[in-house]
Amino acid sequence: MTQRLQLVDGGEQMINDLETLATMVEDDLPGWSRVALTEMDIEGRHWILRQMVDAGLEARIDDAGNVIGILRGSHPEAGTIMTGSHTDTVPGGGRFDGNVGVVAALETVRTLQASETRLAHDLMVVDFFSEEPNRFGISCVGSRALTGRLTADNLRMQDSTGVSFGEALKDARVDPNAILRAGLDFTDVIAFVELHIEQGPYLEDLANQIGLVSSITGIDRFRSLFHGQRDHAGTTPMDRRHDAGCAAAGTVLAVESIAADKDTSRGTTGSVLFTPDAVNVVSETAEVRGEFRSPDAEWLSHAKDKLEAAASEEGESRGVTVEVDWLPGADPVPLSSSILKTTEQVVSDLELSYTRLYSGAEHDAAMIARHVPTAMIFVPSHEGRSHCPEEFTDVTDILSGAQVLLNTIVQISIQNGPAAAN
Amino acid sequence: MTQRLQLVDGGEQMINDLETLATMVEDDLPGWSRVALTEMDIEGRHWILRQMVDAGLEARIDDAGNVIGILRGSHPEAGTIMTGSHTDTVPGGGRFDGNVGVVAALETVRTLQASETRLAHDLMVVDFFSEEPNRFGISCVGSRALTGRLTADNLRMQDSTGVSFGEALKDARVDPNAILRAGLDFTDVIAFVELHIEQGPYLEDLANQIGLVSSITGIDRFRSLFHGQRDHAGTTPMDRRHDAGCAAAGTVLAVESIAADKDTSRGTTGSVLFTPDAVNVVSETAEVRGEFRSPDAEWLSHAKDKLEAAASEEGESRGVTVEVDWLPGADPVPLSSSILKTTEQVVSDLELSYTRLYSGAEHDAAMIARHVPTAMIFVPSHEGRSHCPEEFTDVTDILSGAQVLLNTIVQISIQNGPAAAN
Repeated sequence: MTQRLQLVDGGEQMINDLETLATMVEDDLPGWSRVALTEMDIEGRHWILRQMVDAGLEARIDDAGNVIGILRGSHPEAGTIMTGSHTDTVPGGGRFDGNVGVVAALETVRTLQASETRLAHDLMVVDFFSEEPNRFGISCVGSRALTGRLTADNLRMQDSTGVSFGEALKDARVDPNAILRAGLDFTDVIAFVELHIEQGPYLEDLANQIGLVSSITGIDRFRSLFHGQRDHAGTTPMDRRHDAGCAAAGTVLAVESIAADKDTSRGTTGSVLFTPDAVNVVSETAEVRGEFRSPDAEWLSHAKDKLEAAASEEGESRGVTVEVDWLPGADPVPLSSSILKTTEQVVSDLELSYTRLYSGAEHDAAMIARHVPTAMIFVPSHEGRSHCPEEFTDVTDILSGAQVLLNTIVQISIQNGPAAAN
Repeated sequence: MTQRLQLVDGGEQMINDLETLATMVEDDLPGWSRVALTEMDIEGRHWILRQMVDAGLEARIDDAGNVIGILRGSHPEAGTIMTGSHTDTVPGGGRFDGNVGVVAALETVRTLQASETRLAHDLMVVDFFSEEPNRFGISCVGSRALTGRLTADNLRMQDSTGVSFGEALKDARVDPNAILRAGLDFTDVIAFVELHIEQGPYLEDLANQIGLVSSITGIDRFRSLFHGQRDHAGTTPMDRRHDAGCAAAGTVLAVESIAADKDTSRGTTGSVLFTPDAVNVVSETAEVRGEFRSPDAEWLSHAKDKLEAAASEEGESRGVTVEVDWLPGADPVPLSSSILKTTEQVVSDLELSYTRLYSGAEHDAAMIARHVPTAMIFVPSHEGRSHCPEEFTDVTDILSGAQVLLNTIVQISIQNGPAAAN
């Protein structure tokens, strides 16, 4: 067994950081909520910025709202290793999703500094902006912008009150013009490694401490608008109705049944809105927002076709018109098998139990992986719960994950360093 | 043909009143909205109070929020004839539903005064408080209170923000303690007559000018709460989910199909709310608000059973718990066949075309009819549209309806007057 670096002070400050983030949350939502584009989100990211500065990083908030800190290496011409995650949450979410990967990246920096381990490479730590789907239906905003995937069309998306995403960005102190030009040149970035909680039940089921992610799910999100006719619920005969709400309900069930056919597929309708939303009025419009996920691109494409056909049928049989818009999604993406092997060696050396798995959750890593060899390290989620207040990961598991992250980064640097190149 | 009273000045002021009410509406809602419990509703009812005073009535707002005006008769011991309707609207409603019956009642008073026609009976004009289902799911609040049907339980109903109906009443300047004691002694009330728009398509389909209502539909309204488990939409396998949203969607479709089996039955789900309402989270809870209507009490009772069974099944198959609460509804109620005959004679004398029909809409008349011989007069609704901005009734039809109301009241008074008693 190779000697591996231990976290400084046993990772105490990282656990404190996690606890501090858990105090910076919105009072009027359940769980630990720091929803992107809110004042609390701005406060959270500025707090991360100060931690980066305190850890000795050259830190700033970039044009895409990402908090970025650089630890200079001994041979910057060797390139950059990236690590990080996000600190925004879903409304009513937990304390671990995203946060763990950011505080572990900070702990990696502090450990390198304290142990006077100087990497050859620059180490870039990122707290990505707005990873969770925001109220405009757009996720991974910061990593999308860094990889040049955020479009002017995306900024025109509106929330349910008619506010555009571009306007909301301004309120969150991100310049909507600048974010479209915030692309990063990845030429010199040799690797990206993200530590994250699993958010699913497999690691706990298998009693494994670490998950090595082989690929990340593809996602297709839709917003479907049904337009029927507003009518009196008491006087309008059933056969004269154009009930947008019923067409929407049929589509919700279609999403569920389309995804039921395969083990790795997921179909979810998280949001439904009837208008006028009055008990004695036949709904004029209904909006349905949902998504499909699968590691299989072909299945996703079939699911999209089936959903469009089902929504059309639900509408047509009721004289309700239907529009289905597909929002910015993500294709399934394989991660770097070479870094996975490096990580596997680190995990073995640390005598941790592990398994390979695919990620059913989306991550900034899925954006970055299209440009840079990328790895993800998972730690277990109790009962697989996530995006809820019950989300829980044991401190021991977080410490193990952080140690794997730290040593994977060191190992990548050694394997790709000027010495290795010689 | 008996000589019939004509509306004073051809009903000009009544049409002006309708236009004035159409200016007292909420800017931020479509159509002509004056939703109960809002400032605009308070303003509207105070304007009606002033019109009553100007028309020579002894007017006041009673403990139940109803605006009540009395025109004294020559022989008050003969009793009281009631007429009126309501001036609140659904959100995004039209200019005619309710309003027509209130302005026509005012015009009846003005015509009696101008023509120096003194009834033997007191004439009571009422603008009933909060007839449309309010945000607590409770309709016909004013007439419920007058007939002693509003309960302390009703006042504890909460809206989606946790405010109770009792608190909302206070804000609307109605004392929640007083409203429970606002019952009226109906012993001396000999008749109630309400003019209203049909809100359905039959009169227009049949090219009839007047509808004589033989009975009013029964209504059963429910609020159904589904409680599942909040989970990550990407990582939670389909067969481990407890998706409250899907159970709710299945129930929406059940409401539609239960009501499809009979011509006169109606089933509508006007409101659905998923929580946490996020595209990438499996819904923890879902609330469904809907209703059944039918003139057939037995059918309604079967529909309730079927709905409860369907909701249970939708929940059970997904490991989702279900509660179905039935809100204050109304049994189907037959109206007075004796007043109907009187009105039929008036309509014939006025050479108006008419039909008998049942009302699929609920009305304050359904509350009052349980205590007092009651009649309703309908005028046509263009394309049967109602509870929407497109709601439309021709001025000519409104004038005809008002003339039928006026002469029916006169005729009832004559038939039941001291002279008739002799």
